[in-house]
Amino acid sequence: MLKLIPIFSILVMLGCSPDAGHKIFVDEQGSTPVDYVNPFIGTEDMGHMFPGATAPFGLVQLSPETELEPYSYGRGYNSDAYRYCSGYQYNDNTIVGFAHTHFNGTGHADLGDFLIMPTVGAVHLDAGSAESPENGYRSRFSHDSESASPGFYAVLLDDYNIDVKLTATERTGMHSYIFPESDQAHIILDLTTSIYNYPGKLVWASIRVENDTLITGYRQTRGWARSHRLYFAMALSRPIDSYSLHDLEQLPYSGFYRKFDQQHNFPERAGRQIKANFDFQTKAGDEILIKFALSSVSTANALENMREEIPGWDFDKVHQSVRGKWNRELSRIIIDADKERKINFYTALYHSFLSPVIYTDVNGEYRGLDENVHQSKAFSNHSIFSLWDTYRALHPLFTIIQQDRTNDLISSMLAHYDQSVHRVLPVWSHHGCENWCMIGYHAVPVIADAYLKGLRNYDVDKALDAMLASANFKLYDGIEDYLNYGYVPADRQSSSASKTLEYAYDDWTIARMAASMGRDSIADTFMKRAGYYKNIYDEDTGFLRARMTDGSFTPDFDPMDTHGQGYIEGNAWNYSLYVPHDIKGFIDLIGGRENLIQWLDSLFIMDVSDEALAGSEDVTREGMIGNYVHGNEPSHHVPYMYCYAGQPWKTQKRIHQIVNSMYSAAPDGLCGNDDCGQMSAWYIFSTMGFYPVAPGTNQYVIGSPCINKAELHLENGKVFTMIAEGLSGENIYIQSAILNGSVLQRCYLEHKEIMAGGLIHFKMGNTPNKEWASADISVPYSMTQ
Amino acid sequence: MLKLIPIFSILVMLGCSPDAGHKIFVDEQGSTPVDYVNPFIGTEDMGHMFPGATAPFGLVQLSPETELEPYSYGRGYNSDAYRYCSGYQYNDNTIVGFAHTHFNGTGHADLGDFLIMPTVGAVHLDAGSAESPENGYRSRFSHDSESASPGFYAVLLDDYNIDVKLTATERTGMHSYIFPESDQAHIILDLTTSIYNYPGKLVWASIRVENDTLITGYRQTRGWARSHRLYFAMALSRPIDSYSLHDLEQLPYSGFYRKFDQQHNFPERAGRQIKANFDFQTKAGDEILIKFALSSVSTANALENMREEIPGWDFDKVHQSVRGKWNRELSRIIIDADKERKINFYTALYHSFLSPVIYTDVNGEYRGLDENVHQSKAFSNHSIFSLWDTYRALHPLFTIIQQDRTNDLISSMLAHYDQSVHRVLPVWSHHGCENWCMIGYHAVPVIADAYLKGLRNYDVDKALDAMLASANFKLYDGIEDYLNYGYVPADRQSSSASKTLEYAYDDWTIARMAASMGRDSIADTFMKRAGYYKNIYDEDTGFLRARMTDGSFTPDFDPMDTHGQGYIEGNAWNYSLYVPHDIKGFIDLIGGRENLIQWLDSLFIMDVSDEALAGSEDVTREGMIGNYVHGNEPSHHVPYMYCYAGQPWKTQKRIHQIVNSMYSAAPDGLCGNDDCGQMSAWYIFSTMGFYPVAPGTNQYVIGSPCINKAELHLENGKVFTMIAEGLSGENIYIQSAILNGSVLQRCYLEHKEIMAGGLIHFKMGNTPNKEWASADISVPYSMTQ
Repeated sequence: MLKLIPIFSILVMLGCSPDAGHKIFVDEQGSTPVDYVNPFIGTEDMGHMFPGATAPFGLVQLSPETELEPYSYGRGYNSDAYRYCSGYQYNDNTIVGFAHTHFNGTGHADLGDFLIMPTVGAVHLDAGSAESPENGYRSRFSHDSESASPGFYAVLLDDYNIDVKLTATERTGMHSYIFPESDQAHIILDLTTSIYNYPGKLVWASIRVENDTLITGYRQTRGWARSHRLYFAMALSRPIDSYSLHDLEQLPYSGFYRKFDQQHNFPERAGRQIKANFDFQTKAGDEILIKFALSSVSTANALENMREEIPGWDFDKVHQSVRGKWNRELSRIIIDADKERKINFYTALYHSFLSPVIYTDVNGEYRGLDENVHQSKAFSNHSIFSLWDTYRALHPLFTIIQQDRTNDLISSMLAHYDQSVHRVLPVWSHHGCENWCMIGYHAVPVIADAYLKGLRNYDVDKALDAMLASANFKLYDGIEDYLNYGYVPADRQSSSASKTLEYAYDDWTIARMAASMGRDSIADTFMKRAGYYKNIYDEDTGFLRARMTDGSFTPDFDPMDTHGQGYIEGNAWNYSLYVPHDIKGFIDLIGGRENLIQWLDSLFIMDVSDEALAGSEDVTREGMIGNYVHGNEPSHHVPYMYCYAGQPWKTQKRIHQIVNSMYSAAPDGLCGNDDCGQMSAWYIFSTMGFYPVAPGTNQYVIGSPCINKAELHLENGKVFTMIAEGLSGENIYIQSAILNGSVLQRCYLEHKEIMAGGLIHFKMGNTPNKEWASADISVPYSMTQ
Repeated sequence: MLKLIPIFSILVMLGCSPDAGHKIFVDEQGSTPVDYVNPFIGTEDMGHMFPGATAPFGLVQLSPETELEPYSYGRGYNSDAYRYCSGYQYNDNTIVGFAHTHFNGTGHADLGDFLIMPTVGAVHLDAGSAESPENGYRSRFSHDSESASPGFYAVLLDDYNIDVKLTATERTGMHSYIFPESDQAHIILDLTTSIYNYPGKLVWASIRVENDTLITGYRQTRGWARSHRLYFAMALSRPIDSYSLHDLEQLPYSGFYRKFDQQHNFPERAGRQIKANFDFQTKAGDEILIKFALSSVSTANALENMREEIPGWDFDKVHQSVRGKWNRELSRIIIDADKERKINFYTALYHSFLSPVIYTDVNGEYRGLDENVHQSKAFSNHSIFSLWDTYRALHPLFTIIQQDRTNDLISSMLAHYDQSVHRVLPVWSHHGCENWCMIGYHAVPVIADAYLKGLRNYDVDKALDAMLASANFKLYDGIEDYLNYGYVPADRQSSSASKTLEYAYDDWTIARMAASMGRDSIADTFMKRAGYYKNIYDEDTGFLRARMTDGSFTPDFDPMDTHGQGYIEGNAWNYSLYVPHDIKGFIDLIGGRENLIQWLDSLFIMDVSDEALAGSEDVTREGMIGNYVHGNEPSHHVPYMYCYAGQPWKTQKRIHQIVNSMYSAAPDGLCGNDDCGQMSAWYIFSTMGFYPVAPGTNQYVIGSPCINKAELHLENGKVFTMIAEGLSGENIYIQSAILNGSVLQRCYLEHKEIMAGGLIHFKMGNTPNKEWASADISVPYSMTQ
């Protein structure tokens, strides 16, 4: 039983404009959704999450760094650069400082802009090492005096006895530092540090002390984002006593600035080794607050962002405001479940709402892919598109519970297309840059899926043009060969089999959208391309495999290997199953349902040698069940494939197994990179009982609910409810399903059924109902059905 | 006799809006002012001028570089970095390429942005050496096939048989290259080169091939301008056949761009070693045109600048348009003189109109000192303020014949003040950066002089605030000490005597302006400061000298030395005379008129040893008469000082001597750096017969005319005429002067007399009229008069 209380009174109290669509729910324990979020989940080992403070989809993600990795070139999956993708590892016991930008759960490292650290004692300009933190500005800390919740982070810096609290609005971070008594209290601002900070990454930095409570500046880094410029404005709640801006580089030429004593209270500095210390005399308990705003455009815009978002100095008010925002966002889905599952669910929902981030200033300006400043008039521009990951479940989740934002995200991608010198959609983009990471052109299925679900608040004709341009971008990753050969040849491209499979799926979504728009010729062309996956079917081995230009398959086949076999982040056993748009066609190809069932049964129980595991990428033992890899994306749809072969009960069993073994409410609770919310979005869908196996179908394949109840509070005012009657640790099998009073014998829901509001009522039991949804007619869409 | 013909018909033909104030004059030889300009004057040795194409006050100054100096750290005055301040030395016989920004006549080096070179044959990405140009893209050339005129430059590149023509509008350069037949014709764009290109100067560069006729990009350099960002848009008149964008740096991390073949026709590149070659197949005589536009703001603005300024591809039309602009600008003063003097005069006027440059885009945006983008609504923002040089005569010249622009220049300086973190006016600024070169706060006299002459189309109260802030900017160059001690102490500051003298003069201009505004308290304070020059008078030696904090003068006095004695670019004999605002007070200090006359007489005839010359700075033997230094600025007023001592005939003699010996119509025709027009402005004033010895007095001290006639066509529609009746090589002495029909017995003109229009009629003779203007009452203003 849930109590629903209107939030208007609280909203007024907090000074926020009420958002009628999203009320905050309080459950029987008196807790709101925010109370169930544990930002430390995924901060240990492979999750690559950060525990810091952020608003929903906020640009500023203000979080502690526990290590800086300036020297690790390695990209191996045990390398430090990889471990510190989010800057934080839970097992560390020192904090280097608090930086303002982070990724949530990526497998590649960047950002970590604008590191701030409060200290007392002698000024240190380097971080020092974890072994000897006293040699730098770094401090020891303990998890005992650390806490985090949405929009809030707190820690005690043991070496300095400084109490730290952090909160954030969308574009502005707020720091509270409570100092001990000291005549040498400092705030260090290090403009040289980055996540994955190889030598030469910092291209340029500039700092200006505008007055004794306001500092501005910017920096440019060359990292994963090649030309990343970010501006800041930093306000202090009390005047600086003295300060030093340092340029630690030995310059061949320093101009006539040498006239000045630049070491002491000289208010501007620019270069490639810029650091600053701001000095104070403090009494015990003195609090110094910082507001630190970002902009991609200019320091003037950063300052405007700050003044608009946080006009005053009331930390608690800002914290409560962002907490309220989180509660409204998280109240889009209200669930009933036991406490641990609630924690996992709301933390997953929280993780799903961390990116793409808002990448436009309060005045509507942002720096685009062409590095020009653009005005986003009709939409809110967003950045951080980890599309190879997120097209699978995160964006489909958004088509249900973030419809307005989905339109914004598509407009953002179309702006990227407009600004792209190649005139293509983003592949993996962040902070106004394209980093080209991973494969495929998966902006395409995101747009097609949204379009087919009726989300069309953008230029739909331009959208189709952009999708076609991306699908025909011949310079990119073997597309020209793909068009010539009907597959990407292994002797001309790496990851050729994976690319062929993903291109074919992406192409199918273009065909679907074009058909819906009456663009039949395009639909025909791309429906043909959608079948190209068959061109790499190897009858001899039964796998979809890398093929050479001469038509032969690559020699020395090893179905447990990844890169050597033309796959990426998945082996033949897993990647061959990547035909989400035509599972029926795939079944026919491999000789019938029984073969698929046998394949899947084997996959989940087979042994994987340590040697084979070492040859894979972004995969650990913890993320695996047999040879099924949940810790990475390519197999996320695989457990649902039983539904296409008449054995949905096996899907039901595996979903519960995955939910129980791959997610836990602990720092190491994620079995792999969260990948900007994809791992979490899988959890949200799957625990609610359905999953978008093939975005573009408008269908969600029913797995097995893992929570007692879910209410989806939709932007159209409707509520769609899922009830799993009798669910327990043993009762994991669907006995029957009733949709809005009618018996449901198919194992999928349609998007329009959810959006119309209503009720899906599952009855659960401890033995499989092998009849339910097992008939041919119950099977979800396949292209060649 | 001069013929005046209206220019409206020509203007309409050229598509320009007619400017009623400025007509183009044609003389009896059928020549217009432009025909008398020789841009090669000052391109040899010390002049540091460039011969390339530019519009009046144009940002784009498109000119050949004859050398690139990547390795010369030296700042010695024979160093290559010094020799190539403008990129061109007339005695060289190779051209490296054509760059788009230059200084006119500076003594410090920067700019040279965006070097383009057309070639045929194998692609070279380095310039090669002058000795072996065939090893690079450099080419031999000969002055026989080189020509230049205002807004136009042409040369034949001998090694490639490519005919080059250049022209320019304010923000856009236009290149015409006529190629021989070749299947390997190229246009090289080298983003790594700069004038004074020490290692690491190029911070970042970016290039995008938007389509086969449009390239955009930008770069940032750290030079004299510390954070100099400049954007470009480059259009080609015919499509590129193929191209390569190179990054020659070995990168520690190159991201996922490695996916692509970036060597061939890949349309974007960014880094620190970016170069490009664009390839064509040409038939003999094929012309390829380039439009290359600049912006401080963005590539989008650069493109807008180009489209606004040069919409089509008609090179001759652009050339004729800029030629017309020059003729209208140069027609502000119409003179009668022999041909060589006309050439020197109009070339000097041309040099005076090269900077400050327009530093705002056609849409009004520009990047300010705070690196934010600003909109200059009410004025045209300008940059390149070489104020230590130009406050002396160039800006006073502008107060007569560039009044509207003077208001713009002051507004530009006030914008600088607004954007300055120090909240001070520019010292030496260029391209939105402050380089702090030289000494003093000479924006102050520029503003005061203009204000006192009635030019007040800016916020005059803010102007006074800004002047006060600059004069009290304690971090700067000993100002705090100057206020404490009444002089800048030599044991705490270099160039302490020079600073004391120039601060005192600058302070006097504040006093004058404040008094005029009724701000008496400020006037009193600064009138006191104006007398601080007396605090460094050494009775024992009779010089104004560097003094220590303890009040003693520096030991080991050498009146022929410069830096060792607390001076800059001038020794005790010259710099002690720097009291332009109180020459009467100075005369009293040194014991009377006879002592000054003896000083001056000695100065012009004394021997200077080679050793003493070597110890000076920015000075060569060619720029000296005795120990008087004309090749540098501090003594520019000195020849006029006889007028204050009752012997104007000696001024008359020396003016003719200087004009005849220090200026000639040849490449080596300037005896020192033109210093952004100061050397030239001295020439214009002095040949017309008067000079602003002390800007801020509203007086121009009469020297001796060196041209038969000058008509100043003023913006208020009035004409002020100077006639030197009987002038000849021997007739250099003023016998009498009649101003508007009345006998003039004083040796100065007032600003209002010029602005009212009228006639000053000198009668010249071959013997001095020692009576004329010799009475006390005829002497120009002095503060303690």
